[in-house]
Amino acid sequence: MPDLVRVSLAIDKPLLARLERIMAASGYTNRSEFIRDVVREQMVQRDWQEDREALATITVLFKHDQRGLCDKLTDLQHHHHKEILFTSHVHLDEERCAEVLVLRGRPSRLSHIADELKKQKGVLHAALSVSSTGRRIP
Amino acid sequence: MPDLVRVSLAIDKPLLARLERIMAASGYTNRSEFIRDVVREQMVQRDWQEDREALATITVLFKHDQRGLCDKLTDLQHHHHKEILFTSHVHLDEERCAEVLVLRGRPSRLSHIADELKKQKGVLHAALSVSSTGRRIP
Amino acid sequence: MPDLVRVSLAIDKPLLARLERIMAASGYTNRSEFIRDVVREQMVQRDWQEDREALATITVLFKHDQRGLCDKLTDLQHHHHKEILFTSHVHLDEERCAEVLVLRGRPSRLSHIADELKKQKGVLHAALSVSSTGRRIP
Amino acid sequence: MPDLVRVSLAIDKPLLARLERIMAASGYTNRSEFIRDVVREQMVQRDWQEDREALATITVLFKHDQRGLCDKLTDLQHHHHKEILFTSHVHLDEERCAEVLVLRGRPSRLSHIADELKKQKGVLHAALSVSSTGRRIP
Repeated sequence: MPDLVRVSLAIDKPLLARLERIMAASGYTNRSEFIRDVVREQMVQRDWQEDREALATITVLFKHDQRGLCDKLTDLQHHHHKEILFTSHVHLDEERCAEVLVLRGRPSRLSHIADELKKQKGVLHAALSVSSTGRRIP
Repeated sequence: MPDLVRVSLAIDKPLLARLERIMAASGYTNRSEFIRDVVREQMVQRDWQEDREALATITVLFKHDQRGLCDKLTDLQHHHHKEILFTSHVHLDEERCAEVLVLRGRPSRLSHIADELKKQKGVLHAALSVSSTGRRIP
Repeated sequence: MPDLVRVSLAIDKPLLARLERIMAASGYTNRSEFIRDVVREQMVQRDWQEDREALATITVLFKHDQRGLCDKLTDLQHHHHKEILFTSHVHLDEERCAEVLVLRGRPSRLSHIADELKKQKGVLHAALSVSSTGRRIP
Repeated sequence: MPDLVRVSLAIDKPLLARLERIMAASGYTNRSEFIRDVVREQMVQRDWQEDREALATITVLFKHDQRGLCDKLTDLQHHHHKEILFTSHVHLDEERCAEVLVLRGRPSRLSHIADELKKQKGVLHAALSVSSTGRRIP
């Protein structure tokens, strides 16, 4: 990690004690790494709320035997090829599939794509995860 | 703030720069206070997930003219008088009221109370907030 | 409930069976009431995302002995008297208080008020709940 | 969709009107499909809270040049090979990678895996999405 600096943090003893119990419970051995991770989590949430470019996954759960659905999903995805980096597929059981789309773009746009997929007949669920491209959480 | 100690935090420059931009945007002038608040937020969420005693509000939105509802809500609340610290009431318009319950107890129990209130006919919504008694976030 | 209409809902048997198990577990005895509540919950979330007038609570947890804090909190609240309908207060222990603000206004504004309260020194946490005035979830 | 049944839903006119405006805004043309999707969303959330087998993704954002990190991530993943169905990888820029894990298992276990990945030095973020295998939302 280049360009590491040290800053001083004032903290009252009881809060520090609780922080260290949480760190231990989570398996962190380095206090700075723990605090940096907590701060980064806030940054990812903030970027999402402010609609700044993000990385996301959409997990689409569907019944592959719904007539015309596979074609429809493919069409829809091509319409959003700029945001969709790639997709992966898993056959869950006889009836059901999950397709995981990995996307990059503005959160409002990514949410819209998730909604469009979800409303198709035969699609049971579409789950959106909120991540970051890392540009804004260095 | 008694028993204040200073700890050193290693952080890479770009992350620190972003942290300071966020602080400024939120109006924080003290870096330590900002980091303490971010850490406390994690603690409140963690206590809630681990079902440890919490402070909460339940905001119940209802139509006061629904027959028998006021009696029913009062009965239910008395049944949970150990968790309910007090309630406040606001007349929203001709038809609708909101009652805000302030509660203290285990999150699983508080969620159950919110569910019980919500399922009554005439209750339009019950919103639960997640806070802390402060014992565990000193 | 005036102006009640009946609409027909097509649903596959396995989904209906699961829905009825959930209803039973939650203590609902009326299927229509259960579905109406699920739909209303979506409406409240949607209004919040679209920044439409909402009802909310902010639970502020603080240390009353922090110098100047009570005055500061009172000043801040008067600055937002248009949104704050009323407040209630609970003495949690020797050291800590919780103040519950009940507010009405645009979500972006209510979030801003919560942030402003949270950043004060001596304020340990500020929790925002998301509810509705009922106008848009009839 | 086999075994389709029709159930009757009582709903007051203003709520139905709002529901239809939301449907139109979301692009749904079929009222039953909209209500089924809203109900399914509740089921996925409920299964997750009750720690029942789920499908999830974990998006791990990391700096590939952090010494030893790739090996460490691979080791960790092998330790959880029972839950991890497969992984995909994307090179975000010169410095950063994202690895998307698709998993199946109990939510408490999947959350634990996400935490373990996140705490590694060089991992900037780990985002967990909440989906379903579809078994319980038929």
